[in-house]
Amino acid sequence: MNGEKAKDHKMPLVDLDRFDFLYANRVKGMKTAATRDLMATLSRPGIISLAGGFPDTKAFGEEAFRTISEDIASDAAQALQYGPTGGLEGIKDVIVEVMEAEGTPAQQENVFITTGAQQALDLVAKVFLDEGDAILCEGPSYAGALNAFAAYRPRIAHVPMDRAGMIPSAARETLVRAKKQGMHVKFIYTVPNFQNPGGVTMSRERRKELLAIAREFDLIIIEDNPYGMLRFEGEPLPTLAALEIEETGDVDRVVYLGTFSKIFAPGVRLGWVHAQPGILHKINVGKQGADLCSSNLSQMMITSFFKNGDWNAYVRRLNAIYKERRDAMLAALAEYMPKDVYWTHPEGGLFVWATLPSYLDATAMLPRAISKNVAYVPGEGFYAGGEHKNNMRLNFSFVESEKIRRGIEILAEVIRQRMELRSDLERGTGQMRAVPKPKPKAQKKSPEKEAAEALTERARAGRDG
Amino acid sequence: MNGEKAKDHKMPLVDLDRFDFLYANRVKGMKTAATRDLMATLSRPGIISLAGGFPDTKAFGEEAFRTISEDIASDAAQALQYGPTGGLEGIKDVIVEVMEAEGTPAQQENVFITTGAQQALDLVAKVFLDEGDAILCEGPSYAGALNAFAAYRPRIAHVPMDRAGMIPSAARETLVRAKKQGMHVKFIYTVPNFQNPGGVTMSRERRKELLAIAREFDLIIIEDNPYGMLRFEGEPLPTLAALEIEETGDVDRVVYLGTFSKIFAPGVRLGWVHAQPGILHKINVGKQGADLCSSNLSQMMITSFFKNGDWNAYVRRLNAIYKERRDAMLAALAEYMPKDVYWTHPEGGLFVWATLPSYLDATAMLPRAISKNVAYVPGEGFYAGGEHKNNMRLNFSFVESEKIRRGIEILAEVIRQRMELRSDLERGTGQMRAVPKPKPKAQKKSPEKEAAEALTERARAGRDG
Repeated sequence: MNGEKAKDHKMPLVDLDRFDFLYANRVKGMKTAATRDLMATLSRPGIISLAGGFPDTKAFGEEAFRTISEDIASDAAQALQYGPTGGLEGIKDVIVEVMEAEGTPAQQENVFITTGAQQALDLVAKVFLDEGDAILCEGPSYAGALNAFAAYRPRIAHVPMDRAGMIPSAARETLVRAKKQGMHVKFIYTVPNFQNPGGVTMSRERRKELLAIAREFDLIIIEDNPYGMLRFEGEPLPTLAALEIEETGDVDRVVYLGTFSKIFAPGVRLGWVHAQPGILHKINVGKQGADLCSSNLSQMMITSFFKNGDWNAYVRRLNAIYKERRDAMLAALAEYMPKDVYWTHPEGGLFVWATLPSYLDATAMLPRAISKNVAYVPGEGFYAGGEHKNNMRLNFSFVESEKIRRGIEILAEVIRQRMELRSDLERGTGQMRAVPKPKPKAQKKSPEKEAAEALTERARAGRDG
Repeated sequence: MNGEKAKDHKMPLVDLDRFDFLYANRVKGMKTAATRDLMATLSRPGIISLAGGFPDTKAFGEEAFRTISEDIASDAAQALQYGPTGGLEGIKDVIVEVMEAEGTPAQQENVFITTGAQQALDLVAKVFLDEGDAILCEGPSYAGALNAFAAYRPRIAHVPMDRAGMIPSAARETLVRAKKQGMHVKFIYTVPNFQNPGGVTMSRERRKELLAIAREFDLIIIEDNPYGMLRFEGEPLPTLAALEIEETGDVDRVVYLGTFSKIFAPGVRLGWVHAQPGILHKINVGKQGADLCSSNLSQMMITSFFKNGDWNAYVRRLNAIYKERRDAMLAALAEYMPKDVYWTHPEGGLFVWATLPSYLDATAMLPRAISKNVAYVPGEGFYAGGEHKNNMRLNFSFVESEKIRRGIEILAEVIRQRMELRSDLERGTGQMRAVPKPKPKAQKKSPEKEAAEALTERARAGRDG
């Protein structure tokens, strides 16, 4: 990172500090994201990072950057000034165009600018969640969303997914149970396309069923769609926002979150909410307290590029790059991973979700992998309760294909060694010290294995090309 | 604003909406800032706005903007990428330099970047405040801070000020009372230099006394210092952060907030916290959920300007512009304002605080003023309880001197008309309908008048040059 080193890791990681008696209780519910804490390590030379959620910003190019900064220079006074809390009109027009390109008939007056979609997650939680309220998230779910929500101390129920996304019958069961227990469920949070971290996409039928469930249980759906336009194969599916407008004629209980981080660049920190005006009014009040307004400079740069440049061509270019890298990752997984390792087959986006045998702990294994110069994100951060330690998220958008191949090869070797160690122990050959023989595994298929097979594909299953 | 119109005012201002049963309780404690709601009106052509807190971003210039964007173009890939949550190292070096220029021996590892100082206010509240906790603020206090704090539902006690800032004996009394009532006071919030909205500056003795009080009652001081370098006259005073380091050898219970909004530009949305590492760690966790990281683009632009440009000369230029405008405002106030109107004499910053006779309501008067093409911020937004309706905040940084003069002339006329109306009513000459004669005012000086005289100077009192 150009000689910039993150020093976040210098901060103490324990809660015992001088002002413990002054901190709010909510601080106890807030975790640092594994990816954020890893950032210092990941900028180490030689590391093959499959950990971040970084798009490839080198693809944009210095010349394009020069063009848009030159374009807004004559409006520098406005670019440098405060703006309206909800955003400038120009960028709202751009957002309507972007949402229409994905098939959502958005309205300019229903668009509200945020400082990245991350801020939208924070504001949605701020507006809807009292301590003890419940929400439904996919299992696994985006760690940054779980962190944003956790600050408001809700109960988080994870709904299992399979290859077609969140399972509606499971969502319904959870909602019925929550109601019986007197919990107030405020919203369902979903990343329907190329889910982070699962990599799977919710089917059209399930999208419609989720809308029906939201109406039945009178709650909101937070549709977080950062990756929708990054599709490499298969047919695009309508957003839940589009389906709701189609069914009811207007935006109602779908709060749609979008971002420029993946189709333009994350460094400008700009995202948006598309929702009905009553909800936007609350979000506006929340944003005033949070950061007054988003950067005019960023908004005007984006507007310049999307109005004057060929943004569709840029997204196609990104997709070509990412598809090649996804293919490289899937091929390398199939070539190198030991039997009993499973992974998903994303049709787009940035991530593959891998499932190791249930006795392996990806969190405990990470230092070993980093010492071998490869990094990933352990699965437990994607569950509010920290379960699923045998999962890992693998990113394919940031690193070149050859490095991805090499990274997966190393990672497979690290995993294989762990598996062999276990196997040695089971055979009682760990003779250095007396090791209690583990109970033999039951012969019937374990629930973890069944879940892994539902969500992912088996190694070398032949779908990976 | 270049054809951009804010549409925030289209949002419904009532709480009765379809999803009232889903919103969090905290939404009830969150208000929209009058200045934010006014933004649409204020961009109307012909309006002389003394309302905003806008610096004059025209002063920076298109050429300087071109220079810094060109300078970072070769690092575009980094400028467009995610960055570390706590900020890039380069801008932290700049901040140490800026704080040293104001006499504070800052340490790079105690600096944490935020999306404007407004985000720092939100994060500080997030980290320290449980519902029902108490905090002390100046009376009046920055409305944006009150809004940020209100989302976490604390009790806010306003401590009165005089011309030397917050009155320590009053702060102490409030703390003793709060302790007796079993409240947990978490921090004292202060804007010591050219306070927003009061315009007054806390004396050196009071700064030291406030530090002693914080130690005695074992709480934190939030020192919010956006305007410290905008001094037009008088000797600079040490920050509370500097005094603490001088007294104890290290940063401890002073959490210092700075911003580039006033010495560079607000459109980049960048501020910072300087605090001890334990507190910064909590703030880091809070920021990850709030917006992941601040804009690399903004950070690199600032770093380029502060490392390559003459930022001190730029601040001197801003101060020359603002001093002339302040002088114009003070002269116009003295020339046009009716007797019984008072105002403060700021030695720097952006604001004058005016006090009308206690029977006048500046909020009710605002539509009349706007219809005459002049705007200000009514005082009640600067008190958590909405008191002091007879105050107004007047900004002198954004509008040219000639317009300031004209704006004050119009405003004085609007106030005079209101005073005459009242006088007419008192004399019983309102003959169109039977108006009950108000009780005659007591002859002894009212408490409001005494308070106004303590904080402000009397019209034409001769200190205004």
